[in-house]
Amino acid sequence: MSFDYRRVFRSAIREVAAEKRYRVFAELERMAGQFPKARHHAEAGPREITIWCSNDYLGMGQHPKVMEAFQETAARMGVGAGGTRNISGTSHPLVGLEAELADLHGKDAALVFTSGFISNEASISTIARLIPDCLILSDALNHSSMIEGVRRSGCEKKIFRHNDVGHLEDLLKAAGKERPKLIVFESVYSMDGDIGPVGRICDLAERYGAMTYIDEVHAVGMYGPRGGGIAERDGEMGRIDVIEGTLAKAFGCLGGYIAASTDIVDAVRSFAPGFIFTTALPPAVAAAATASIRHLKASTAERESQQRQATRTKDVLSRRGLPVMPSVTHIVPVLVGDAELCKAASDRLMDRHHIYIQPINYPTVPRGTERLRITPTPFHGDQLIDTLAGALCETWDALGIPYADTGRAAAAE
Amino acid sequence: MSFDYRRVFRSAIREVAAEKRYRVFAELERMAGQFPKARHHAEAGPREITIWCSNDYLGMGQHPKVMEAFQETAARMGVGAGGTRNISGTSHPLVGLEAELADLHGKDAALVFTSGFISNEASISTIARLIPDCLILSDALNHSSMIEGVRRSGCEKKIFRHNDVGHLEDLLKAAGKERPKLIVFESVYSMDGDIGPVGRICDLAERYGAMTYIDEVHAVGMYGPRGGGIAERDGEMGRIDVIEGTLAKAFGCLGGYIAASTDIVDAVRSFAPGFIFTTALPPAVAAAATASIRHLKASTAERESQQRQATRTKDVLSRRGLPVMPSVTHIVPVLVGDAELCKAASDRLMDRHHIYIQPINYPTVPRGTERLRITPTPFHGDQLIDTLAGALCETWDALGIPYADTGRAAAAE
Ligand SMILES: Cc1ncc(COP(=O)(O)O)c(C=O)c1O
Ligand SMILES: Cc1ncc(COP(=O)(O)O)c(C=O)c1O
Repeated sequence: MSFDYRRVFRSAIREVAAEKRYRVFAELERMAGQFPKARHHAEAGPREITIWCSNDYLGMGQHPKVMEAFQETAARMGVGAGGTRNISGTSHPLVGLEAELADLHGKDAALVFTSGFISNEASISTIARLIPDCLILSDALNHSSMIEGVRRSGCEKKIFRHNDVGHLEDLLKAAGKERPKLIVFESVYSMDGDIGPVGRICDLAERYGAMTYIDEVHAVGMYGPRGGGIAERDGEMGRIDVIEGTLAKAFGCLGGYIAASTDIVDAVRSFAPGFIFTTALPPAVAAAATASIRHLKASTAERESQQRQATRTKDVLSRRGLPVMPSVTHIVPVLVGDAELCKAASDRLMDRHHIYIQPINYPTVPRGTERLRITPTPFHGDQLIDTLAGALCETWDALGIPYADTGRAAAAE
Repeated sequence: MSFDYRRVFRSAIREVAAEKRYRVFAELERMAGQFPKARHHAEAGPREITIWCSNDYLGMGQHPKVMEAFQETAARMGVGAGGTRNISGTSHPLVGLEAELADLHGKDAALVFTSGFISNEASISTIARLIPDCLILSDALNHSSMIEGVRRSGCEKKIFRHNDVGHLEDLLKAAGKERPKLIVFESVYSMDGDIGPVGRICDLAERYGAMTYIDEVHAVGMYGPRGGGIAERDGEMGRIDVIEGTLAKAFGCLGGYIAASTDIVDAVRSFAPGFIFTTALPPAVAAAATASIRHLKASTAERESQQRQATRTKDVLSRRGLPVMPSVTHIVPVLVGDAELCKAASDRLMDRHHIYIQPINYPTVPRGTERLRITPTPFHGDQLIDTLAGALCETWDALGIPYADTGRAAAAE
């Protein structure tokens, strides 16, 4: 009797379903010029909805300059790159994009990958593997792509408690000054909306002779005078060895990158399989990303308006007693605390209110902290925020989801 | 004294340079409508060249239908997807693309990734990890992305000699019928241009109760009546459990995929970090890929003309005594056998003849088998082939690269 493979996959899926975390993807048609409106293709047919959970934080995916660069470049150069970076895939716009990114972060050089995911996995693993006996110190809430990079490096690793510089210092001290060490952490943690203590981590790195690697995926384009991220905002870019980011969130396109010294970039470029053995990003995507970065380097209007609408969303929701989780950033998580309820809330918002907010369940967040993660953009006007608040309260009431402890009374004021 | 990180990266780069495999990427501007002509941005300024090493094998990256779908979709929906598959990133065109791919391969379902690289890494590792005590049997010449997937699975693996079904059978037999086993292999091996014995591997898989996973990255769009690949051509698609492919080579776009049973696709969809935790492919890319696949399902003109020009290239080069390596496919490798000479030949072709063929050196191919890998397309007409042959001979003569053993005499005929 040979092995029953089918049973394995079926039962794995059944387990996911039993834990109420089987995922059904919402099928969407975004409408350029009408963001955050979109068409949702549901079983009953398509209908118009409002997206409240996009990571196109500034709506740059539909910015005229970005769309223009995308279309104009495709018209001139076609769609695909036609090869890996080494074999005919390095396009003129891609080289320009790397120069733009190096400038954005004040580094010698930058290297573009097909995604932020692969940029983390490939860069962390390659950098750590090149360093003899490297110890990796990794924040407990680091993103999956960073964890994959750490794992793939094969190096010893220690996890420090989330944003806990005391704990990090203990681990650095225990490792000793001579041993090579790489600290990997994020600036904006996207599910909670908190921010890593960048400056204090740099202090420790200098004191104990460690290299620093920061993921600014949710911060680039969003923070700092030119959109360089939290490290730019805090004046710490020069003290970070490797800054990693994405082109797919605030910049509204696709792809990931690192910015660092020439030596580091050249080493990753020369040794990382995830960079070498894959087709390069299309020239049109590179041109669109460059246009987006350039625009956000010069314009602060999008960042300011986004922060304003995010703050207003937090205020309005909190005033209605909704359990807005503490967040110092542009992200507005609202606690549900149960996977099934979270899914039900999301379904009800979509069905009754034509509002799309994806439930965030385990494994993306710890069990018991299931939430609706709301991402206001400059295009979510005051009226939309008020409508959202009403829809959430209706949903909270209908499903019996707990309000904030002190909330309901306040809301009655 | 803290560790000198810089020295590590510098000396790693120096080693690469000492081995004559430091890579300088050619910066290109493709010109839609004039493929394979392109602008090369060299130090001395831009100039027009002919690309002879693109993996846009059929020139679909500039096909009017593909460009039209790309631009029209971007105009309607903007550039980026705006989220991961689960969080607002599943676009209507992406769902359509997955249906198109499932149909192409005659499978229940398909799943799209941001690259062929990540589709291999994520799918192989996830599938093998879900199967208890899985033994992976992997062809010795499998692509880096498959090796990464095998490694990431953490499963025991055995390497069988390239395309050696006898060796594979020994390993299957030794493992026993009961033990779960996954055979991973390619159809077209892109550096040599040979083809895996798909049918015989399926026979063995059935006899010994193994699952089969095939990488058809260099075959999809290129072989089979509808461009389903070698497995389609050989009537074996139904016997393969997982077919993996790319949208970035013959289809001329970007992205990778698997096609398989609903159970397998659902399991990978639910468990693979490289699928879950990354921004989805832009809707415009999905629409362009769909247009390309649809066109190549119905039209055989591109495949036929490509095969004709590849055969003519092999004939013309062989007749001139150039050491064309045996290849049963659309790929035309010409042996140089030395890293430095290979680079010099490529440089001379570019500088003197305005012909771009990237040298293929270690680690992409074994040392001593360095080569120029030539990929004729339907757009490389007879005249271009003759020009290529002349340029290669001039280069071979100037640099003293060995001709084929029997070649020079024949060339004098
Ligand atoms: C912290 C973090 N890093 C990296 C990534 C991956 O970036 P990308 O979507 O470009 O693959 C994500 C999310 O997608 C993320 O949240
Ligand atoms: C055999 C094989 N599989 C997978 C890949 C990766 O595909 P992609 O370029 O779409 O990442 C490649 C080359 O790039 C390849 O040659």
